[in-house]
Amino acid sequence: MSVSPGATLREVRDRRPLVHQITNYVVMNETANATLALGALPVMAHAREEVEEMVGLASALVLNIGTLSERWIEAMLLAGRAASERGIPIVLDPVGAGATGYRTDTARRILDEVRVTVLRGNPGEVATLVGAEAEVRGVESIASGLEPAELAREAGRRFGLVASVTGPVDHVSGGAHVFAVANGHPLLAAVTGTGCISSALTGCFLAANPGEPLEAAAEALAALGVAAEDAAAGAEGPGTFHARLYDALAALDPDALDARARIADA
Amino acid sequence: MSVSPGATLREVRDRRPLVHQITNYVVMNETANATLALGALPVMAHAREEVEEMVGLASALVLNIGTLSERWIEAMLLAGRAASERGIPIVLDPVGAGATGYRTDTARRILDEVRVTVLRGNPGEVATLVGAEAEVRGVESIASGLEPAELAREAGRRFGLVASVTGPVDHVSGGAHVFAVANGHPLLAAVTGTGCISSALTGCFLAANPGEPLEAAAEALAALGVAAEDAAAGAEGPGTFHARLYDALAALDPDALDARARIADA
Amino acid sequence: MSVSPGATLREVRDRRPLVHQITNYVVMNETANATLALGALPVMAHAREEVEEMVGLASALVLNIGTLSERWIEAMLLAGRAASERGIPIVLDPVGAGATGYRTDTARRILDEVRVTVLRGNPGEVATLVGAEAEVRGVESIASGLEPAELAREAGRRFGLVASVTGPVDHVSGGAHVFAVANGHPLLAAVTGTGCISSALTGCFLAANPGEPLEAAAEALAALGVAAEDAAAGAEGPGTFHARLYDALAALDPDALDARARIADA
Repeated sequence: MSVSPGATLREVRDRRPLVHQITNYVVMNETANATLALGALPVMAHAREEVEEMVGLASALVLNIGTLSERWIEAMLLAGRAASERGIPIVLDPVGAGATGYRTDTARRILDEVRVTVLRGNPGEVATLVGAEAEVRGVESIASGLEPAELAREAGRRFGLVASVTGPVDHVSGGAHVFAVANGHPLLAAVTGTGCISSALTGCFLAANPGEPLEAAAEALAALGVAAEDAAAGAEGPGTFHARLYDALAALDPDALDARARIADA
Repeated sequence: MSVSPGATLREVRDRRPLVHQITNYVVMNETANATLALGALPVMAHAREEVEEMVGLASALVLNIGTLSERWIEAMLLAGRAASERGIPIVLDPVGAGATGYRTDTARRILDEVRVTVLRGNPGEVATLVGAEAEVRGVESIASGLEPAELAREAGRRFGLVASVTGPVDHVSGGAHVFAVANGHPLLAAVTGTGCISSALTGCFLAANPGEPLEAAAEALAALGVAAEDAAAGAEGPGTFHARLYDALAALDPDALDARARIADA
Repeated sequence: MSVSPGATLREVRDRRPLVHQITNYVVMNETANATLALGALPVMAHAREEVEEMVGLASALVLNIGTLSERWIEAMLLAGRAASERGIPIVLDPVGAGATGYRTDTARRILDEVRVTVLRGNPGEVATLVGAEAEVRGVESIASGLEPAELAREAGRRFGLVASVTGPVDHVSGGAHVFAVANGHPLLAAVTGTGCISSALTGCFLAANPGEPLEAAAEALAALGVAAEDAAAGAEGPGTFHARLYDALAALDPDALDARARIADA
């Protein structure tokens, strides 16, 4: 187990992997631009007629339920099953799970029917899904009372995937070991879609390092966090921070990223 | 009747109300970011399966018909009726009413079936709706020849709501008193979606001051106008103005806003 | 045959033509803002119920297949046929043709059923469509081995339209003469949607100069390229470049544009 966001970033830029994203209307432009700025290639496609073919060209799939409707759910399941069969890593961003039953149910359905590699959400979303899973199985859910590190471990263990729980400090776990990632900046919370961007970048890092999903997920968060730190220096508020975030992602230096990444055992 | 955009802005930031927006594809990211920058929380959700549940969590609902289709209209009506029943304030932005019959009819249908609190549009859109209403009732429409202040009053009176007619000077009326708001900058017209942003911010101000919709609507326009004045200082054109607009919304100082707001009786 | 991007830009700003765009979710905001920054008026509308009426108000139609689904294809065909009947110039951007059969088939269907004025794509997309056309007709396709200038000529000839093949140097041809346009900047490739922006601006230039589609298509690419050169000066990466691109489009001086445009016979 070796963690080097700089090494994986070099792989991203060398390989330029295609990352297929079925995501919400609010952030499509932003996650595409973040993917490009990092050095990978985004493609957005959601038609049931083409998602299976498109995901076959991709090195990772990102599913984001931020603005749901029936046909989009069908497309996510079709693409997700095709990616599962082909061993293409999958990121699920369960935006708003817990806010409405429709979102909670959809996230659970994707977790059931698709081999999700990394579940990337905030503590509330991940706790909702752990709790819903516990309820179905008739076991006690303790998710809502868990510290983020324990929540990540519990989610990783229950769902058999890497849980990436983001917040002021991020926690990433496959059910045993937990990484804490302490990079970032408060302005990330002042711009919509930065959580979705973290999921898209997780897809890029998984595409470049598919054999180590735990490390790749932590590395992606460190990369975004360091870029946010750079973008905040000189920003005058959320709007100029947002523009500068793409500059900073594009300018990330692999060696400096390794030196500045604050990834620790939790 | 007291007008204090600064006091209402303080409420927005203290309460951080959730503002549910069913809006067009072009501006979703922009209205979400403007909502966040001001200090409220945006949520975008349009599935018929969840809009009634989602709006129940919200303190205001914004309906914007900028990119229509059948399922979106159904969702707007479902959400609008649920909000009406629960007394949640509703903003309608009738984008493009008058350009096509489909848009005019949809805006009229929402006005008929939903208890709209504030109708926020440009003079052409609002005059179209007043004219269409007059035609249905067999009364003379004089809307197309009205000055904006009279148009706002007439729309407020006929529809029994607050009409917010924006332009170089904005006019806001509930059918009797008319406020004129003279803040703003010409660069607002060079960026797409700034009208939609004014509707989203109207939702934020209504959420914080639901008992005074006339004042809240005028206050929201003053806040956006003052932010636009700040953003224009130092901008090199519409692109940098756009980025700086979010900086300026986030940096709005309540006391300075009260001092600079140009809200007058019309 | 006279080429003057500055003269056509003056027409755009004098007439402020309405450009109806049925485009993908990722870039709607961006193409609308580029249209506005140049000096034209964008309108986005995709409902089958209104596209024929809306296109009747427009001076050009832009069809972009970047995020397809069935209803959007139907709307594109409806709007495209209505524009064809009325002699309104049409731009087709076949985003992703060749990546999936769905996209290739849809682009071919639009070429078959709609009188496309300008086909604006990258070399791979255009070569795919030329090859698919050749296959259907049982003739030899040589598209994949062609130099861009020859590809543009071949596509123009086979489809009976102006082919606008963009890349580090762009090539535009109606089947005989080929213009090469050498303006631009590598940062254009680091921002998503700049190809789509070039299609939208092609629509603006066609609206202002409908009698000379070959010249208008080349002029549009020169205008975007010169604006990109200006935006890159002072940009710190793709994010600030992106914001500055709208500034630069709005600031384009017609005389300077004519002097700096690098449009040559290929």
